Amino acid sequence: MTAESTNLMKNLIRDVPDFPKAGIVFKDITPLLADPKGFQMAIDTLAERVRDVEFDVILGPEARGFIFGCPLALKMGRGFAPIRKKGKLPWNTVEESYALEYGEDTVQMHDDAVRPGQKVLLVDDLLATGGTMAACRKLVENQGATVAACAFVIELGFLNGREKLGDNLRIESLLEY
Amino acid sequence: MTAESTNLMKNLIRDVPDFPKAGIVFKDITPLLADPKGFQMAIDTLAERVRDVEFDVILGPEARGFIFGCPLALKMGRGFAPIRKKGKLPWNTVEESYALEYGEDTVQMHDDAVRPGQKVLLVDDLLATGGTMAACRKLVENQGATVAACAFVIELGFLNGREKLGDNLRIESLLEY
Repeated sequence: MTAESTNLMKNLIRDVPDFPKAGIVFKDITPLLADPKGFQMAIDTLAERVRDVEFDVILGPEARGFIFGCPLALKMGRGFAPIRKKGKLPWNTVEESYALEYGEDTVQMHDDAVRPGQKVLLVDDLLATGGTMAACRKLVENQGATVAACAFVIELGFLNGREKLGDNLRIESLLEY
Repeated sequence: MTAESTNLMKNLIRDVPDFPKAGIVFKDITPLLADPKGFQMAIDTLAERVRDVEFDVILGPEARGFIFGCPLALKMGRGFAPIRKKGKLPWNTVEESYALEYGEDTVQMHDDAVRPGQKVLLVDDLLATGGTMAACRKLVENQGATVAACAFVIELGFLNGREKLGDNLRIESLLEY
């Protein structure tokens, strides 16, 4: 990835102060999505980054994980499976709960989203504290599959999400803050 | 679209009885997403169907609208803007409420998602009663933009969503039930 393409994409990420609550600066990806060249560059660059990763299927958590995970799956000729909040998926599900600052949240996937022995690429827009992605990893591993790598458009390095996701896990991110 | 490709895609839609509640047969698209050939065929066929539609940007409601709207936007070289449930979008929003069977729901988009005079293609996975899509249409029109067409993978014709969406609106759907 050239410095030029990094700058092009970074210029399409909008900082929104105090969202979802005071003190948080939210990275708004909608200007990137509105720009066909920028959006395509993000998908192409994600594909480059994971070109040498062996994987069978892409999984991404709702809803922004769908935005990047689906085009990447199509570009790389792999299937996609959604990971969703509890109660959204119609078929038989497996689930994993994880702690939030206050309370907890639960993610689910269909029990046929991955088969034992399959290799999974997890995709989301943003790596922050890594809580959601760590729960997604457990979902996959509980089914006897493995996570080959995680790929993000944006990484907030100061939140140490990489540590939360665990050692020995390959993590790619395009734009670091 | 050939009968063969229709059959291929229909075989990848799974009927789930009694979801989200008793008496409803839910059309589960996850087998289609898991099949790279079927998923790509859905995107390619949607693109064919709207090839002659003049539009500037694709909008799709969360979360399944992202699954088809984003790859279609990239394929057609247009931008994408998300329509979300209330409280999810970080920037300044405009909103539209609509009636549900019990109570109501609200959709929002960023106030810069469309500009006055722009033409919009609305994309979602499924046309059922058309309530959500009608609210999305109002969102767009309230900003001084117009809906050039709506495109769906699946249409439940017996629910008469076309009528709800209004006359003079072009509607394309790939798989009819």
